[in-house]
Amino acid sequence: MQDLYPSRQDKPEEFISRPDPVVFGEGQPTGEHSLTPDQVDFYDKNGFIVLEGLLSDRVEALAQEVSRIGRENPDALEVFTEPDSQQLRSIFDLPKFSPMIADLSRDPRFLDVATQLLGGDVYLHQSRVNIKPAHSGRSFPWHSDFETWHVEDGLPRCRTLTGWVMLTENTAYNGPLFVIPGSQRTYVSCEGLTPDENYRQSLRRQEYGSPSLSAIEALAKESGIVGVYGKPGTVVFHEGNIMHGSPDNISPWPRTNLFFVYNSVENAPVKPYGAAKKRPTFLANPDTTPLKRNDA
Amino acid sequence: MQDLYPSRQDKPEEFISRPDPVVFGEGQPTGEHSLTPDQVDFYDKNGFIVLEGLLSDRVEALAQEVSRIGRENPDALEVFTEPDSQQLRSIFDLPKFSPMIADLSRDPRFLDVATQLLGGDVYLHQSRVNIKPAHSGRSFPWHSDFETWHVEDGLPRCRTLTGWVMLTENTAYNGPLFVIPGSQRTYVSCEGLTPDENYRQSLRRQEYGSPSLSAIEALAKESGIVGVYGKPGTVVFHEGNIMHGSPDNISPWPRTNLFFVYNSVENAPVKPYGAAKKRPTFLANPDTTPLKRNDA
Repeated sequence: MQDLYPSRQDKPEEFISRPDPVVFGEGQPTGEHSLTPDQVDFYDKNGFIVLEGLLSDRVEALAQEVSRIGRENPDALEVFTEPDSQQLRSIFDLPKFSPMIADLSRDPRFLDVATQLLGGDVYLHQSRVNIKPAHSGRSFPWHSDFETWHVEDGLPRCRTLTGWVMLTENTAYNGPLFVIPGSQRTYVSCEGLTPDENYRQSLRRQEYGSPSLSAIEALAKESGIVGVYGKPGTVVFHEGNIMHGSPDNISPWPRTNLFFVYNSVENAPVKPYGAAKKRPTFLANPDTTPLKRNDA
Repeated sequence: MQDLYPSRQDKPEEFISRPDPVVFGEGQPTGEHSLTPDQVDFYDKNGFIVLEGLLSDRVEALAQEVSRIGRENPDALEVFTEPDSQQLRSIFDLPKFSPMIADLSRDPRFLDVATQLLGGDVYLHQSRVNIKPAHSGRSFPWHSDFETWHVEDGLPRCRTLTGWVMLTENTAYNGPLFVIPGSQRTYVSCEGLTPDENYRQSLRRQEYGSPSLSAIEALAKESGIVGVYGKPGTVVFHEGNIMHGSPDNISPWPRTNLFFVYNSVENAPVKPYGAAKKRPTFLANPDTTPLKRNDA
């Protein structure tokens, strides 16, 4: 298949104007929790949207469930702890461990938006919870998620987004997500090549697929940087190619977020475009069965 | 002399309620640029105050002057560059290199406030410019400046403040100063002992005199954390004991600030309270001659 988003092909960095739309199927509503036309326009223009407190009713149960999964599965491949302690850092493939979280991934408050923006049925390409610990949580450099999902997982087109919920408050002080509004329209073809089993390193700190300082400067020149803040239960949707990063967390408060990556079923993964073999299934789900609303 | 602010005495961390006032001499105005009574009250309560754009007329000349000093004195003891490049990081004892900056330290916009809040004549204990570079500027852990000035430089009482000017915009995104309002009232007596020539390490990353996570949590519980943001030319005064830190700078914009540390002439340094010998004079000025307004 033709590579519309070449990256890490051992060539100089370049900007590629995105050949795919940001909103597919003209953003027709697919359910009562779909976005309003104004919200769709905002997402189309900026590449993200924040829905304050949308899932505040679920925060307490979800936080307990995340702790339970970590406690009961300390040795699972999907569970990552801090190098120097048993403190939980990330858990991947959450539906495998939790009917409650599997159910949440099909909640209309997520699914009515994902199907609306991606123009039809979707499945879960990846899910994870990230805990950026108080006082010492490390920064994450600028990157496009889609760049990795294309190069390392073989998603052909940019028809994918992340819907996520804040389980603790996200403030300017605890290592929040910074996004560059509008950057979803520009694909940065990165330098270098992908090492074998890059994910073992990149889950700790991404080195490949991270653009140069001058690329970030050029992207941010137009509309600057925006911090994504909110109370627990706030839901955010961000487009697969939006450029984002996060500073370290020096505050006394952890930052915990739960992410669902939705991909169009019409965008099923093929052979990776820049890696010898695919990443493990807990990072890149091969099962593209459409998700049904949990009240269907 | 009795040690009213013991720290790094190889004892457990403890909170000491500050025996000194925050505002000395009841904050009587000392010149036409002194703060208003409301501003003095704000500073007394919060430990800092932000004066938006107060020196915006001086930013361009100062930025050029800082570049000139770095360029003309690459090997000076007071000039620090990045470990892996010749990029300027810090310059100390600026008046030594620059009549323009010596003059600025006596500008009534600084001096009328410093003499007002410290209740009389002041001198410059330290001056510096810090450049937190774009993309990779490192975080600085929570600390009280006064704790170091007391333990390592021998300032007996907490009768000192920093007045500083932003030479680039300080935003939530480029590693700004975070302060804990009200924390200036509590002195954190830190664990450990001070190694010899600690400053060689602590200018890069402070390890001694940095409180525990639980201490920061307790201090921030009441009034949280506030980020100090402003356009170039914004002037900030912060009290010597306010707890502060800063995250890393992942943005494409450097953060450059120029600091003057004013100490009361009645608070001249004595033998350090927790170090074998004093730090070099470029970090701790022994000349306590009162500063006169540059228009006097």
